[in-house]
Amino acid sequence: MQVRPTAIDGLIELTPRIFHDERGHFFESYNKPLFTSLGLPMDFVQDNQSFSTKGVLRGLHFQSEPFAQGKLVRVITGKVLDVVVDIRPDSATFGQHETFVLDAALANMVWVPEGFAHGFVALEDSIFSYKCTNVYNKQAEGGILWNDPDLGIDWGVTNPNVSEKDLILPTFKSLFAKVS
Amino acid sequence: MQVRPTAIDGLIELTPRIFHDERGHFFESYNKPLFTSLGLPMDFVQDNQSFSTKGVLRGLHFQSEPFAQGKLVRVITGKVLDVVVDIRPDSATFGQHETFVLDAALANMVWVPEGFAHGFVALEDSIFSYKCTNVYNKQAEGGILWNDPDLGIDWGVTNPNVSEKDLILPTFKSLFAKVS
Ligand SMILES: Cc1cn([C@H]2C[C@H](O)[C@@H](COP(=O)(O)OP(=O)(O)O[C@H]3O[C@H](CO)[C@@H](O)[C@H](O)[C@H]3O)O2)c(=O)[nH]c1=O
Ligand SMILES: Cc1cn([C@H]2C[C@H](O)[C@@H](COP(=O)(O)OP(=O)(O)O[C@H]3O[C@H](CO)[C@@H](O)[C@H](O)[C@H]3O)O2)c(=O)[nH]c1=O
Repeated sequence: MQVRPTAIDGLIELTPRIFHDERGHFFESYNKPLFTSLGLPMDFVQDNQSFSTKGVLRGLHFQSEPFAQGKLVRVITGKVLDVVVDIRPDSATFGQHETFVLDAALANMVWVPEGFAHGFVALEDSIFSYKCTNVYNKQAEGGILWNDPDLGIDWGVTNPNVSEKDLILPTFKSLFAKVS
Repeated sequence: MQVRPTAIDGLIELTPRIFHDERGHFFESYNKPLFTSLGLPMDFVQDNQSFSTKGVLRGLHFQSEPFAQGKLVRVITGKVLDVVVDIRPDSATFGQHETFVLDAALANMVWVPEGFAHGFVALEDSIFSYKCTNVYNKQAEGGILWNDPDLGIDWGVTNPNVSEKDLILPTFKSLFAKVS
């Protein structure tokens, strides 16, 4: 397992070793003792899978306290630009973001701790998969507008396919007015 | 979540609800509170993913006590014939097997408790995924010859692509001579 820390505290990229042979390949996408030793939580309680056609953008999403979710995200087929925004008010990097190209051929993944907004745009038709530290809670769902100029995210796409729900999400400033 | 018990005690097939929209689809492939309420173990500690070209047969595999693994198995792309053999000496169905077609379009999965040998043949190029209740332990690996006539499994294929390691696995009778 390759581990790459990022400029944002707690946010790391992980790349497993893939074993290839005449039949195809094999890898461990999660191993609790190993991932725990790397600082990931002991417990994941929900696994999700979505399929997105090329150009679909999902995000930016989070669940509010006390239902915040840490997410271990990756793609199984295809390729996405994955984006995470630090929304921890006490963080030195509050409001800053990181982007990652998640590529099925690499099986690279990102550990997104609680306290981040998350989204991605599908660069190809892609199967996206993630493990969560807390279960889905519709009432606790929150979000930030994907193209909020204050976030300054370069999505690399001009006209993404965004859900109606995501098009009317609030801006970062309006959401965190009280703490900024 | 649809739940279908089988003729073998403890072995069940599960089919999640898939939500489709203009972007693609979404489903929960695992939800700890829900799966626990259905009788699956509280804890999965390893997730594995393999890719197999059409005609590849992997199996029949198990890990010996005290490293036995319960497995929640499914495919993410493609289609496989999944086979499980009851190797619990005290079971009323000891030596009997069940087969399932696992289909990515359905996202159906099988809960294989500890005490089963497991394998599959890829009916198409397929990505196979499973969650385990115990981590990998090379020393504890066991297996049974896939085409052991005493098991009477109809794999539906004539010349599968089997690893050298799997071609020399023992028969069911030689393995369980002491208890049969
Ligand atoms: C997140 C989630 C959703 N659902 C249901 C509710 C909806 O009927 C359907 C799609 O939910 P939406 O809220 O539109 O999901 P979507 O916009 O794709 O966003 C989700 O999926 C994204 C990636 O797939 C994640 O980045 C987001 O954090 C997550 O909220 O799935 C569940 O049943 N369980 C869930 O955990
Ligand atoms: C099972 C397992 C294997 N490995 C490594 C060891 C090998 O270098 C490589 C492939 O392992 P093999 O023993 O050939 O795996 P394979 O024949 O595909 O069988 C495994 O994968 C099958 C399906 O993918 C399962 O049905 C079997 O229970 C499981 O044992 O992956 C791991 O690193 N972790 C593991 O958990």
